[in-house]
Amino acid sequence: MSGKFDFRLLSCDGRARRGELCTGRGRVQTPAFMPVGTLGSVKSVTPEEVRSCGADIVLANTYHLYLRPGHELIRDLGGLHRFMHWERPILTDSGGFQAFSMTGLCRVDDHGVRFQSHVDGSSHVLTPEKSMEIQAALGSDIAMVLDECPELPAEYERIESAVARTTAWARRCREAYTGPGVPFAIVQGGPWEDLRARSARELQELDFPGYAIGGVSVGEPAEAIARVAGLTAAMLPEDKPRYLMGVGRPVDLIFGVDSGLDLFDCVMPTRNARNGTLFTSMGKINIKRNEFRDDPSPLDPDCSCETCSNYTRAYLRHLILSGEMLSARLNTIHNLTYYLGLMETMRHAIEEGSFSAFRREYLDSPAAGRYGGDDR
Amino acid sequence: MSGKFDFRLLSCDGRARRGELCTGRGRVQTPAFMPVGTLGSVKSVTPEEVRSCGADIVLANTYHLYLRPGHELIRDLGGLHRFMHWERPILTDSGGFQAFSMTGLCRVDDHGVRFQSHVDGSSHVLTPEKSMEIQAALGSDIAMVLDECPELPAEYERIESAVARTTAWARRCREAYTGPGVPFAIVQGGPWEDLRARSARELQELDFPGYAIGGVSVGEPAEAIARVAGLTAAMLPEDKPRYLMGVGRPVDLIFGVDSGLDLFDCVMPTRNARNGTLFTSMGKINIKRNEFRDDPSPLDPDCSCETCSNYTRAYLRHLILSGEMLSARLNTIHNLTYYLGLMETMRHAIEEGSFSAFRREYLDSPAAGRYGGDDR
Repeated sequence: MSGKFDFRLLSCDGRARRGELCTGRGRVQTPAFMPVGTLGSVKSVTPEEVRSCGADIVLANTYHLYLRPGHELIRDLGGLHRFMHWERPILTDSGGFQAFSMTGLCRVDDHGVRFQSHVDGSSHVLTPEKSMEIQAALGSDIAMVLDECPELPAEYERIESAVARTTAWARRCREAYTGPGVPFAIVQGGPWEDLRARSARELQELDFPGYAIGGVSVGEPAEAIARVAGLTAAMLPEDKPRYLMGVGRPVDLIFGVDSGLDLFDCVMPTRNARNGTLFTSMGKINIKRNEFRDDPSPLDPDCSCETCSNYTRAYLRHLILSGEMLSARLNTIHNLTYYLGLMETMRHAIEEGSFSAFRREYLDSPAAGRYGGDDR
Repeated sequence: MSGKFDFRLLSCDGRARRGELCTGRGRVQTPAFMPVGTLGSVKSVTPEEVRSCGADIVLANTYHLYLRPGHELIRDLGGLHRFMHWERPILTDSGGFQAFSMTGLCRVDDHGVRFQSHVDGSSHVLTPEKSMEIQAALGSDIAMVLDECPELPAEYERIESAVARTTAWARRCREAYTGPGVPFAIVQGGPWEDLRARSARELQELDFPGYAIGGVSVGEPAEAIARVAGLTAAMLPEDKPRYLMGVGRPVDLIFGVDSGLDLFDCVMPTRNARNGTLFTSMGKINIKRNEFRDDPSPLDPDCSCETCSNYTRAYLRHLILSGEMLSARLNTIHNLTYYLGLMETMRHAIEEGSFSAFRREYLDSPAAGRYGGDDR
């Protein structure tokens, strides 16, 4: 392990934590949400826009960048930060989740994951060492270990063996990593508390700079996500950052922060934006709906993003129905502003000791009103 | 006719003219290139970006906006400027060209054009009066008359009848127009000098605030465009703006300015951008090519646009090959900067009396090097 890395807790409010993560590429105020820039681009927006929406850090996908344009190419061009023109912190996933989920043929054994590229069908093997090599070449500030993440529902024995393999792979990742950042471990264990505990304990024995909760939001109901995230968070060390992977809706972020988690990522704000599903202070809306046909008001009167400052709902509806590319961009700017603004509000609430009041108020507000049930 | 409108010639250099067009929405420095915002959006970029690329005026398409979202909706929302968040001048075409070219069934008679929507197959009739009504509702600053524009090659008699109908329709448009801007007439006549002269003479008898050259770039070779544009320009009044419709390549703009034309529009910079064809000081390149795979240099070292300032050729190639939406946007910003920068260079050259030297230098430079032949 190399690289400047430090995590400081600034204040706590209940289990919710306000912290600061210091990397060689700058600071991340936590709790933080990381916009997803799969292929080295947060879809439709520039790094400057991602930043002005409020992001301190972005996530990029190892699997995708390994296949296209290739990690060696990116390394030779000065690393991912320079390549994508984002000089602030980057977290990369291990590539394992996509190798499991995006590819046709996929075989896992103790050695690693054998898969076929979704781009051209070519065969590849992702081992813990290979994943670390790729992430080191990309030059990310936080590199995630390769883990085994079974889809749910799965049997206890299946998850138990994934926990054992995840620990073994985490050890290999820890030893193999030579990049400029730090590796984070990933706790597995599915819905079982004893397996989560075992995974958390085994990984802490390896002493990682940060810990993630994996294997959530992989097919189980929303309640299960909150339960597992909450119980696993309590198993993780106080003084290290805790990252809930791939979650989720605004209310999930609130529950996550309430459980003492510090980092989040999800494609929801960006992907939903491209589909016309927009997060507002009045709840989630689909801008394609006929009711917005001649609506001269801004998307969200409580929002001061570029989209809400300059365009009407009628125009945003026109853009998406006409297939105009500007649609994705304006919608993405708004949704990212919403998500990142929500994180900022939570950070302030924790600082002021008013997090539980904020939480209660949000859950009673129209913003949360339409999130009932498992509507991811 | 209403609205503030004035055209002043500031200086001339040979036939090339440096002028200023004053509208109620602001001034347009001529010779000017108008980026195309078909559906009320220059594809993939914001109005602020269009402006910072150097545009004084944009073009929007009457046919498209009439079908989606509808001109009455736009009127009720305060007009097209407010709708698309572009407060500077807008020119709208008549809708005729698209009704002729984009629709399956299309019948023309003296009354107007009957066509079926390319969106949903619904039947519509576009008359001179209807075209003016739509453009008045949009609130454009320059409204183009409905003209008949036959595809080339066409027989003399066919073009002769189109000229007669175009004059008759121009008269009806002139009488019907009640919008906030001014109407421009369109000279037809195909490749025949006598028909062009007749069309130009008949339209000038109607005394329009500006004149366009239509029926070029509709299937004929590049040499024919330059010839017809040149001879028709000489038939138009000195003190009125002259607009060459739908043209073209950078060299066509240079020939057009050299012929005394003032306004131009073309989808080429924006459409080519989305295909990865980019205009540079070294000539036209396709950024998808393998030679750019690991190229760390900016797209055009002589360009200071956002794209060339922040990104490498390798990254631009990666974006387009990966289907990333940011690709269209970064490429569009560059191509518009190139086109609008070329216009600015020509304006300065005319002011300094060095237009013919500029023209010679450009045509001898690598920038023009790959434009030989009819490679539109």
